[in-house]
This record gives sequence, structure tokens and C-alpha cells, in this order.
Amino acid sequence: MQEQLIHYIRRFITVTDEELNKIVSCFRPLEAEKNELLVVAGQTSQRTFFVGKGCIRIFFITEEGQEATRYIAFENNMATALCSFISNEPSLEFIQALEPSELLCISHEDFYHLLEVIPAWEKFHRHYLEKAYVNNTNRLMSFLTLSAKERYRQVLEVNPEIVRRLPNKIVATYLNISQETLSRLKSKI
Amino acid sequence: MQEQLIHYIRRFITVTDEELNKIVSCFRPLEAEKNELLVVAGQTSQRTFFVGKGCIRIFFITEEGQEATRYIAFENNMATALCSFISNEPSLEFIQALEPSELLCISHEDFYHLLEVIPAWEKFHRHYLEKAYVNNTNRLMSFLTLSAKERYRQVLEVNPEIVRRLPNKIVATYLNISQETLSRLKSKI
Repeated sequence: MQEQLIHYIRRFITVTDEELNKIVSCFRPLEAEKNELLVVAGQTSQRTFFVGKGCIRIFFITEEGQEATRYIAFENNMATALCSFISNEPSLEFIQALEPSELLCISHEDFYHLLEVIPAWEKFHRHYLEKAYVNNTNRLMSFLTLSAKERYRQVLEVNPEIVRRLPNKIVATYLNISQETLSRLKSKI
Repeated sequence: MQEQLIHYIRRFITVTDEELNKIVSCFRPLEAEKNELLVVAGQTSQRTFFVGKGCIRIFFITEEGQEATRYIAFENNMATALCSFISNEPSLEFIQALEPSELLCISHEDFYHLLEVIPAWEKFHRHYLEKAYVNNTNRLMSFLTLSAKERYRQVLEVNPEIVRRLPNKIVATYLNISQETLSRLKSKI
């Protein structure tokens, strides 16, 4: 799993072996069961997760009391309740394993220590933040500006693995619609 | 106005006079009239704005066809349609001056060139992205997770200048509610 993380990091930055060892040594392995909650809203999230195997999702509860899934990370991606990770304040979001998962996680403290001692980590974090900003804004804006049908078309185009791999119940929360509406859209498109 | 920008930059990073001159020389002055649109949705936004005097807002159009204001920058703050600025793709958002405004603006090209040549600018951008991520997520989540009344209480607590300084029409778009609902909330709270 460390090899996967190294490959992921080297896609964004150039680092010496020594720096890479220091970075990788900050990530600790964690196994999660299917449906296990890794972060609960209200709790201060102090970890960023790299998915070696399996899948995790980040979700929140809407004004109507429904779960809305903001982000799903499959293998070879990182995810966190980023607002809480950055600000060290309580999370508005939940993080849950959707499948039995093998993860690597880094604490807020270690992550920000690496920013101080490894200049290239600053660049890594910048790429991560840029990607997260664009993803996150697009996702939340899609809830506010697109119809259910447009959101469904978008996920089929941008992230079809979500529809192929995950149960309808989860896909519906990703689109912020009911399972009945999802079934209707599936039969039409 | 350049002094204001220098003061703003020095709050986040330590730079030499030479580096600072290089940074500041990339920002060009721009005067905007009241209600002038600086960026229109669909257009690729290639500028980040620093507000020396006046006020600009960033807004989008909801699924219901209403304007929703995501961000308002008064004096001594920066703002941009950040997704578009990062990705160099068409903006989902509009940027508009709400008052006669004096601005400094930097192009995408100059901004990313500074990242290559001034290591401290990487740190500046990281701070900017972290702040933008937290602000933006909190704003969009407030539309999705809070009631109109809760959103109004939040703006009174976090950003009362918006209610004090701007017309009801704009405050209503900031809360993503009608002007009638805003009047009702104002009379109750």
C-alpha cells in the first residue's frame, strides 16, 4: 500500500528518497469495516485518508434531514473532512467506509509539520487544495444549480464508477435525491 | 492602494523587498463603476482582484433562476471566481462591483509565474486556498444545511457589515432568500 502512496505523491512533486521516507513514515495503516464511521459530525477531524483498497465517502445532513454525499474516494485517492482538517474545528461532515477498506492516514499535526520541513510538501498541499476546491465547489454548486436529471447525467459522464460500483441507496445520496427518483432517472436515461 | 496590498501580503508571508516589488508589479489598477460586471458566467476568469476601496461580490444563478451571492469582499480583501482561476475553464460565477471601486488585479498567468519564481508565494497561495476552501464550503453548506433564519443569524454574527452596508436586495441574495422573507426576519430578530 505504501508503494501506491509513493506513486500518488510522485505524480505531483519531485522529492528525494530521504524526504519521501519522512513523508511516508507519517502515514499509519488503518483497516475499516464496511459501513464503519471514521469521522462523525461535531468531532474534530484530525486525519487525512489515503485509500489503498476499498472506498470511503464524505457526507453531511441537509436542512431536510437527508444524507447528502459530497465526495467518494476509491483506490489511490485521498480524502478528508477538509474544512475541519484545515481549521482544526469540529467537522460538519461524516466520513464512512463503504466497503471493507485498507487505508493510510496522517494526522493534522504530522501533515502541518511536513509543510514546515519539506518545501515540496507545500507544493503537494497546494495541488491537493486546488483540486479539492474545484471538486468541492462543483459538487455543492451542482446541488444548488442543477436539476436531478442534470446531476445524474453529470455523474455518468464524470464519475460512472459511482453508479456501477455502489448500491442505489448511496448513489441517491450522492445525487441528493430519493431512491425512487433515481430509479425513475435510471429507467429513462 | 499598493501599500494596502503590501500590508495584506505581509500578514501571511515573509518576503524580501525585491520579491515584494516583483509581486506588486504584477497587480494592475482597475476602477469599476457601481454595478459593473467584471466577470460574466461562461467566460474564463483570468484575474484575481484585491479591493483597495469599495466592494465586489461573487454570485451564481440557482436552479430556480435566482441570484445567490457566495462571497462579498470589502476593502483589503482578495476575491476571484476561484474555480475558473485555478482550472482556466469557464466560470460558473459572476463578479460584480457593488459600489464604485478601486481594485488591483493580477492575471492567472502572472499569478502562476510568481509560484514558479518566488517560493514564499507558494505559501501565500496555500493560505489563500485554505481560507477560500473553508469560506466557500461554509457558505455553500449554509445554503444546503441551514434554514433562512439560521443563515440570517449567522451573517449577523460572522459578517454584520453585509447587513449594515448593503441594500436589502443584495443581502437577500447573500442569504439565498426573497426580500420579503428578509424583511420578516429583520422585524423578528
